[in-house]
Amino acid sequence: MGKRVAVYRKEHFNAAHRLYNPAWDNATNDKVFGKCNNPHYHGHNYDLIVKLTGEIDDTTGFVMDLKELSELINAQVLEKFDHRNLNEDCMEFKHLNPTAENIAVVIFELLRPHIAQAIDLQVRLYETERNFVEYPAN
Amino acid sequence: MGKRVAVYRKEHFNAAHRLYNPAWDNATNDKVFGKCNNPHYHGHNYDLIVKLTGEIDDTTGFVMDLKELSELINAQVLEKFDHRNLNEDCMEFKHLNPTAENIAVVIFELLRPHIAQAIDLQVRLYETERNFVEYPAN
Amino acid sequence: MGKRVAVYRKEHFNAAHRLYNPAWDNATNDKVFGKCNNPHYHGHNYDLIVKLTGEIDDTTGFVMDLKELSELINAQVLEKFDHRNLNEDCMEFKHLNPTAENIAVVIFELLRPHIAQAIDLQVRLYETERNFVEYPAN
Amino acid sequence: MGKRVAVYRKEHFNAAHRLYNPAWDNATNDKVFGKCNNPHYHGHNYDLIVKLTGEIDDTTGFVMDLKELSELINAQVLEKFDHRNLNEDCMEFKHLNPTAENIAVVIFELLRPHIAQAIDLQVRLYETERNFVEYPAN
Amino acid sequence: MGKRVAVYRKEHFNAAHRLYNPAWDNATNDKVFGKCNNPHYHGHNYDLIVKLTGEIDDTTGFVMDLKELSELINAQVLEKFDHRNLNEDCMEFKHLNPTAENIAVVIFELLRPHIAQAIDLQVRLYETERNFVEYPAN
Amino acid sequence: MGKRVAVYRKEHFNAAHRLYNPAWDNATNDKVFGKCNNPHYHGHNYDLIVKLTGEIDDTTGFVMDLKELSELINAQVLEKFDHRNLNEDCMEFKHLNPTAENIAVVIFELLRPHIAQAIDLQVRLYETERNFVEYPAN
Repeated sequence: MGKRVAVYRKEHFNAAHRLYNPAWDNATNDKVFGKCNNPHYHGHNYDLIVKLTGEIDDTTGFVMDLKELSELINAQVLEKFDHRNLNEDCMEFKHLNPTAENIAVVIFELLRPHIAQAIDLQVRLYETERNFVEYPAN
Repeated sequence: MGKRVAVYRKEHFNAAHRLYNPAWDNATNDKVFGKCNNPHYHGHNYDLIVKLTGEIDDTTGFVMDLKELSELINAQVLEKFDHRNLNEDCMEFKHLNPTAENIAVVIFELLRPHIAQAIDLQVRLYETERNFVEYPAN
Repeated sequence: MGKRVAVYRKEHFNAAHRLYNPAWDNATNDKVFGKCNNPHYHGHNYDLIVKLTGEIDDTTGFVMDLKELSELINAQVLEKFDHRNLNEDCMEFKHLNPTAENIAVVIFELLRPHIAQAIDLQVRLYETERNFVEYPAN
Repeated sequence: MGKRVAVYRKEHFNAAHRLYNPAWDNATNDKVFGKCNNPHYHGHNYDLIVKLTGEIDDTTGFVMDLKELSELINAQVLEKFDHRNLNEDCMEFKHLNPTAENIAVVIFELLRPHIAQAIDLQVRLYETERNFVEYPAN
Repeated sequence: MGKRVAVYRKEHFNAAHRLYNPAWDNATNDKVFGKCNNPHYHGHNYDLIVKLTGEIDDTTGFVMDLKELSELINAQVLEKFDHRNLNEDCMEFKHLNPTAENIAVVIFELLRPHIAQAIDLQVRLYETERNFVEYPAN
Repeated sequence: MGKRVAVYRKEHFNAAHRLYNPAWDNATNDKVFGKCNNPHYHGHNYDLIVKLTGEIDDTTGFVMDLKELSELINAQVLEKFDHRNLNEDCMEFKHLNPTAENIAVVIFELLRPHIAQAIDLQVRLYETERNFVEYPAN
């Protein structure tokens, strides 16, 4: 059995978003989300780090070819979210508040079906250099 | 006469924007600006570095107190642009395409009146880690 | 039940410190701590990353509002340590050597009472870009 | 019993390498490894982060003196790999493909005998800022 | 006349190289170039920052579209040097020692014919995070 | 004549300091320097970038061997300032306020006599990631 190693690939995308809860009135949205609730949106450079944990394949020396992983992230995630308005352009957030936490969960669910079952998947998403999230939690 | 030194302060803001030229038709805008022309906007974490060049004050050892410079940048720039939609919320870009080049020129013009005449000002703006601009050019 | 996500907030503070053990003579302190034992102190820019692990709140989409977490870290940690001499100014280190390990444990204990019980807390502290610690260990 | 803390030390080395499997023909090597299979080699600035997890020693406040850890990494790893051709100069890779995964496992095995048994060891290796690996996986 | 602004694009490539002067004997090469003279080569992740200085075009708001600049750097520089052995694979260094200084000059000369005459060009090349060069010098 | 190139070397040191002007009373010092005037000192990880501008030597391909430059910076600057209290331990600051501006000027003057006359010298000093200075100014 090959040794278990974690491999990581970093990608990024730029998007606009707005935080708000349609079940609340404006005052509550402003109180909870502050300037993140700007109705005209604001935006971020999101850095995305995808972690795969699995056994090294003896013939390649890879857990997974990171070039293939990069192409997978591009096809499944960046094509949907890069240079988009998450609230307006992305059906995933039609009924889900695009907080960093929720975006990370959505990215996990977009990637999971395309990764071999024997490999564990974790997603880290940087909304800014100082605010970031990870799913699933260790 | 005090020695001339450059001092730098780094700040950041998050904003949405869209690149387009209202004088052009859609096809031309798409050709020139590509996905940056998304009508629902996208966004960035902008890093802003303000450079001041002047003489060291012998009594303080400062060209300018960087805490005061930080407060000035916050009052004149970040209050206007942070968590905003540059096209929709900022009068500076009602008739000016918010490219990184134009944003840097606007920031220079917002700050210049508040900096002592004897001090030179230069603005560097990072739209992403890999795309950035500087005004005025050396 | 909401999904468990980890959220992270990065802050920083600047402080002076000195490493030594009062139970030892000077020669032993010099041998063990080297130039970190300078009696006039030296200093660091400490980067602090606070990790909270908990369930996403369905109404906000947050594990915890990172703006509130930032304010909590400022009130409980940065007010005490920023621009201070850890050995001289901070009662936490009157009888505790301010190594990165011990500072991380102290920060954990300062924050823990202010975080909801259902949320796990972990602290990472960078003394320099190349030397850093984490408590509790995974 | 002292509290368990993780301590980290970051080092780096520069090396040339080539990815290929001698059991395969050229076409298969090219298909799997692409331009990483250049027979004249290419190279990287590798960043290495070594993580030790153990109890704080009450007399020093350290899990391990990071200056000693740095010297250990230099003696056991950097002396072997820095400014070398991993395939040509390093016996560890005479019969092992120098992928990031395999290099991390080799570094773990070089360091493990020199670290106290009560201390856990983990190695993270950055081949580039965007591709990195960790062994053993959590 | 449009305002003069500098725009920057960052790219990177990974390559192997060896420093030596064929006019010298081995002892002199070892004395001058140390371990950089390893005959089996070592390697680096090179970060390349290309700076263009020119006037803002009023219709686009660009000095030059940075996507086009990125494509130009890829075609003229990265296609030649990425995942290559500079000494063995690149005719530019058949008779020129691939120091960072010389690589920067070569990259300048590869790009200059493809940039409009009215635009100034400068190249910064990072061999490591701590060693970097710029051509032409200000 | 060789081409003029700028070469850069990055080093760092950790030090304690306090900002104050002995000609002023306490209230004025507190007003001007705020918490930087803590009488027990605070500290920083200083990043130092030394820039040399000169012609490429045709026999080496170097403006100056950056390993030699690193040794020079270590001998002339880091030996004096690393893990020191700038106010208490360093005669350069007995009668000079150790602001970033003044430290940069002092470092320039420490290095200048050891660099060949034909080579221009410039010093950039980061007190934090967000506050930095450069001497002489361009």
